[in-house]
Amino acid sequence: MVAHALPVSLSGYARAAADRLDVEALAYFDGGAGDEISRAANGRAWQVPTLVPRILRRLADGSTRCPLLGRTLAHPILLAPVAYQRLAHPDGELAAACAASAQGAGLVLSTQASVPLEAVSAAIADDPDRGPLWFQLYLQHDERFNRALVRRVEAAGYEAIVVTVDAPCSGVRDRERAAGFELPHGVSAVNLADLPPRRAAPPGLCNGLVQNAPTWEDIARLVRATRLPLLLKGVLHPDDARQAHAIGVAGIIVSNHGGRVLDTAIPTAHALPAVADAVGGKMAVLVDGGIRRGTDIVKALALGADAVLIGRPLVHGLAVAGAHGVAHVIRLLRDELEIAMALCGCATIADIDASLLGPAQPSHSQPP
Amino acid sequence: MVAHALPVSLSGYARAAADRLDVEALAYFDGGAGDEISRAANGRAWQVPTLVPRILRRLADGSTRCPLLGRTLAHPILLAPVAYQRLAHPDGELAAACAASAQGAGLVLSTQASVPLEAVSAAIADDPDRGPLWFQLYLQHDERFNRALVRRVEAAGYEAIVVTVDAPCSGVRDRERAAGFELPHGVSAVNLADLPPRRAAPPGLCNGLVQNAPTWEDIARLVRATRLPLLLKGVLHPDDARQAHAIGVAGIIVSNHGGRVLDTAIPTAHALPAVADAVGGKMAVLVDGGIRRGTDIVKALALGADAVLIGRPLVHGLAVAGAHGVAHVIRLLRDELEIAMALCGCATIADIDASLLGPAQPSHSQPP
Amino acid sequence: MVAHALPVSLSGYARAAADRLDVEALAYFDGGAGDEISRAANGRAWQVPTLVPRILRRLADGSTRCPLLGRTLAHPILLAPVAYQRLAHPDGELAAACAASAQGAGLVLSTQASVPLEAVSAAIADDPDRGPLWFQLYLQHDERFNRALVRRVEAAGYEAIVVTVDAPCSGVRDRERAAGFELPHGVSAVNLADLPPRRAAPPGLCNGLVQNAPTWEDIARLVRATRLPLLLKGVLHPDDARQAHAIGVAGIIVSNHGGRVLDTAIPTAHALPAVADAVGGKMAVLVDGGIRRGTDIVKALALGADAVLIGRPLVHGLAVAGAHGVAHVIRLLRDELEIAMALCGCATIADIDASLLGPAQPSHSQPP
Amino acid sequence: MVAHALPVSLSGYARAAADRLDVEALAYFDGGAGDEISRAANGRAWQVPTLVPRILRRLADGSTRCPLLGRTLAHPILLAPVAYQRLAHPDGELAAACAASAQGAGLVLSTQASVPLEAVSAAIADDPDRGPLWFQLYLQHDERFNRALVRRVEAAGYEAIVVTVDAPCSGVRDRERAAGFELPHGVSAVNLADLPPRRAAPPGLCNGLVQNAPTWEDIARLVRATRLPLLLKGVLHPDDARQAHAIGVAGIIVSNHGGRVLDTAIPTAHALPAVADAVGGKMAVLVDGGIRRGTDIVKALALGADAVLIGRPLVHGLAVAGAHGVAHVIRLLRDELEIAMALCGCATIADIDASLLGPAQPSHSQPP
Repeated sequence: MVAHALPVSLSGYARAAADRLDVEALAYFDGGAGDEISRAANGRAWQVPTLVPRILRRLADGSTRCPLLGRTLAHPILLAPVAYQRLAHPDGELAAACAASAQGAGLVLSTQASVPLEAVSAAIADDPDRGPLWFQLYLQHDERFNRALVRRVEAAGYEAIVVTVDAPCSGVRDRERAAGFELPHGVSAVNLADLPPRRAAPPGLCNGLVQNAPTWEDIARLVRATRLPLLLKGVLHPDDARQAHAIGVAGIIVSNHGGRVLDTAIPTAHALPAVADAVGGKMAVLVDGGIRRGTDIVKALALGADAVLIGRPLVHGLAVAGAHGVAHVIRLLRDELEIAMALCGCATIADIDASLLGPAQPSHSQPP
Repeated sequence: MVAHALPVSLSGYARAAADRLDVEALAYFDGGAGDEISRAANGRAWQVPTLVPRILRRLADGSTRCPLLGRTLAHPILLAPVAYQRLAHPDGELAAACAASAQGAGLVLSTQASVPLEAVSAAIADDPDRGPLWFQLYLQHDERFNRALVRRVEAAGYEAIVVTVDAPCSGVRDRERAAGFELPHGVSAVNLADLPPRRAAPPGLCNGLVQNAPTWEDIARLVRATRLPLLLKGVLHPDDARQAHAIGVAGIIVSNHGGRVLDTAIPTAHALPAVADAVGGKMAVLVDGGIRRGTDIVKALALGADAVLIGRPLVHGLAVAGAHGVAHVIRLLRDELEIAMALCGCATIADIDASLLGPAQPSHSQPP
Repeated sequence: MVAHALPVSLSGYARAAADRLDVEALAYFDGGAGDEISRAANGRAWQVPTLVPRILRRLADGSTRCPLLGRTLAHPILLAPVAYQRLAHPDGELAAACAASAQGAGLVLSTQASVPLEAVSAAIADDPDRGPLWFQLYLQHDERFNRALVRRVEAAGYEAIVVTVDAPCSGVRDRERAAGFELPHGVSAVNLADLPPRRAAPPGLCNGLVQNAPTWEDIARLVRATRLPLLLKGVLHPDDARQAHAIGVAGIIVSNHGGRVLDTAIPTAHALPAVADAVGGKMAVLVDGGIRRGTDIVKALALGADAVLIGRPLVHGLAVAGAHGVAHVIRLLRDELEIAMALCGCATIADIDASLLGPAQPSHSQPP
Repeated sequence: MVAHALPVSLSGYARAAADRLDVEALAYFDGGAGDEISRAANGRAWQVPTLVPRILRRLADGSTRCPLLGRTLAHPILLAPVAYQRLAHPDGELAAACAASAQGAGLVLSTQASVPLEAVSAAIADDPDRGPLWFQLYLQHDERFNRALVRRVEAAGYEAIVVTVDAPCSGVRDRERAAGFELPHGVSAVNLADLPPRRAAPPGLCNGLVQNAPTWEDIARLVRATRLPLLLKGVLHPDDARQAHAIGVAGIIVSNHGGRVLDTAIPTAHALPAVADAVGGKMAVLVDGGIRRGTDIVKALALGADAVLIGRPLVHGLAVAGAHGVAHVIRLLRDELEIAMALCGCATIADIDASLLGPAQPSHSQPP
């Protein structure tokens, strides 16, 4: 496949990937929870706010550079943690990591990665221009295992740990179940291979599966147990963000898990402003969910985010053209961000603020 | 049919039932009044509000147990009164009752049931884990008949009487009329078999058919005439709820009759908050109309309901797999409720409140 | 055609008429101005407000009787003035008049009727139960002709004159022009047969065609020139309603001409409240535009109207079954009104008020 | 093609042009940026506000005459600058100029015109009834070239210079790229033929392409460098309009470039009121984007515009019937404007104001 035949937008990648992924993998990656209302609302919530661009400002010497957790990034785009990427391409997470590295994007590796976490970090360790490398952690039911996993993550050179907190149990994944999705032979959560089996479930909600769901105490203990900065992924309420800050968490990711867990959860674009008001400036605030355009990123930053993550587009890039596809997806988004900044009159990331967002619809308007 | 081939959601059941019910029965059960605006709006009104889940709360030892009219229920789901269930399956109301009993759900038997009310109560009388068993009453034009029916209901072990008050006459059922629906031979309102014929209609609205429609005086008399607690079904205005409380009614069901009577009646999700503000805590407040997901139940409880009822999904379960289908429908909804609670950070029903509901759309938003 | 094969709703009549009318007549009758935004918005604006019905009120001895301009009507439904009804059925306006008379509905005959105005009044003069008979007047460019026409109208027994004031020129009727609509041989505005030709158009807007458009002075002169009460049809602004009252006009019809003149004109349901607030009680206030259900009439009366008119449904009835079809259309709407009143807890027209209308959507709601 | 076979509305022209333009040209002319949200929202934003027409006002001796930059125009319609019009018709900009002249419409020639600017002005110089002739300027990277171009524009008799300021770089034109659009042999920006090549791009946003994007200083310099009045096209923020006025700019065009540059930019109908409030009356305020109906023009003027421009409809007219098509497009719009004015009760342009616009939707309304 030659470069000019690749899709020209992230939605083009989504369509192309739908033709290449088998139906079970597509249901797994693209599906959401329940009626997929949050999944669809996430994207629309970035499209709906309007931009009021400014004109004739000096654009010379601009750039997308931005600070995040003590580093300066080339641009504010990270790859979100996505499980089992070898379902999308044989190279899986290794391809994604190389693509991220080549494009200066951050990478958050999933606990449920289908390649060893050490292999991923080794693949890009030597790239001086790579973005941040983080590890996403699902706290497991075995405390000893959790501690050992954190030690491996630290030893492998990951720079931060992202604890996902919005999924004490799985969501209601109708599309997956209708498609009969099961992990194929040869794809598994290799980093959890040593996890001891769960003991018989006690009574309680969800057949006892949430009996050991992580609590604030578990997070506080983890903060003390690792030298790495900790982020929480899946924060939607400002009081939870405040609580995270109070116990020493370094950053939060405003996320509803791509609409894959609790359907009708608030779109992240609507949750972001209150969360950023509560803790912005005091801790890193990232956001994901439906980011597909450079203008979406401008709006996310205008509403208080420091950076954004993309999940499904990474899978689409993998499915269409492996590492090359992922790199192209990041490149497209980064180019669109630069264009959107220039067209809004913003030479730098710091120039982006809420004054770019349009007012509410005038009161004389009325649906026909 | 093996269990794993059953639908995985209530909307899946609705689609499967549409393939199995004959066109007249489908028009009768699934149709609504007029342009079916309220019928559609009911469901959408639960989907539209957003949830702002809370994280990292203790979920251990949670449950869906909840109080209702002096009992503790296993969960807050009841089967709504639906007429002529033998149209959907030969076992009709008996199947629904067994399914409800097996799943700990409450059951409200319709006056227009197609099996004797005594047979229904006898079928589940010995199950210690069954939910509440109530009887829905349409007051008839013959006072002596009404009194005798109430005596039968009391004698058969029903625990409460639900008087439907939103249908002094039938609604404008276009879909039914277009399909030419008539009750087939062998299906009838057997519990009304002894009802004397109506005398010639006097003049007045609706060809005099509403001349003897029940009034507040009739309800007050009924409260005094039975030892059972009385509920009113079809209350949408808070002043009517207050009036019901004042005359000794024990509970109300916020309902627009599934959109089957007055089209463009307010969706029950929109009527519920004012009603619950008026009488919540002083009397039982239930709600029905378009509840199809566990998240819908969370929202109903957050808006002030003590429990919810499902109507059409019961019919869909019956049509797809008889008692087994109804039980599965209840089980799906109950499982979804537990998952939604866990994902919202609520270990118990008492943890659910309005703080879970998202704020109005921010003022910078604007439809594209 | 047997009665039970007729459509069961006004929208059913619309569909059936679309199959029977030739494409030019359909474009003429059903089409609107421009992009037909107002035409569609009219109907939706009645569907959108919700009703909050009241329960257990006494319904005995209720009726739809209501006062209008000194008479008591059997119900508040009138047939709107529609031109060239012989395009829809050979009996044209005579059929409509007989149907209205049989159903106790009012009739407003169009200046552009395709039968003589004297023939229409003669056809129903002897029916003691007929509704009001009014004449719709387009003031013509010739003052002598206007005076003679008013004399004919008075002599023929019409009880009021309705001057249409929202059409100083024709609207932009794209559908009509695309269909190449022209009046067929044998159908014409017979009551204008003696109208002298217009003199050469002077310069000005619309090629001078609006040079002699009626003004407030013309209306004031007409009030003085006839003994009949005068109504203005096409009033949307409360100040215009006040002005009409000030010069002795007896009533107004809130109308945007069925969306046939100025596209994107405010839906009549949205214009009605302010107009009724301004002049309701002091003069008759009627409304038309998109009324298709009994619930629409309840809302119109709740928002301040004294009566309603239907236009296109009359044509659909004519096209489907002549006088019988029109009578059935009126009967359906009247039956639906009675049902809606009973279901709202209103025994009489006077019981209908704005307290039946639901509150605005709660602030926690948000489009998905 | 005979006149009566031409489309009867601008949307009809759009459909007819889509059948005649080749797919690449269609993508170029009709496409927008990104997901084309702004492109679609522009048009809808004019349709959504309602009009509350006034009745019985004197319409005699009315007209569409209006003042603009010291001239009196026959009507407030101008042709927007559109590049490469010879893609749509061999006569290109010459045909458009002749049509504008014949209809008394203004013309704004694009810097990227496909015919020499002197040829265009020469073609219509002798028409005493022609509308204003303006030149749209993209400031180029070579200052000497810019100065020479302005001298040519002045010498050729153009009356004003319109500097486009909303496109420091190209937008994300997915449709164009998907169609593989390239300028065909024989169509080029002939007026830029002498432009020296750009030097190697320095680092910065957009590969350095915006390094020399025009700034307020460049505009201030241009104001001093030409005797012609200067307008800025692409102003959406009131503060930018104020700044333009402060440095001597004579007028602004509220525009988002037809949704071709920054997707999700605020619709021009929503941006216009604040801009007009800021500078209306002190400088000329024009608007473009989605104007397709006479009622759209009435609303634009009611919201504070002095005149409007149409872009794509000009191309559609060209594609369908060359100069004749463009003239017909203007004529249709002008006729619709006159009709809309008459129907609103406005005899003159000065009678149009915000009191014609309807109130916000009443609070009892609620989407079904």
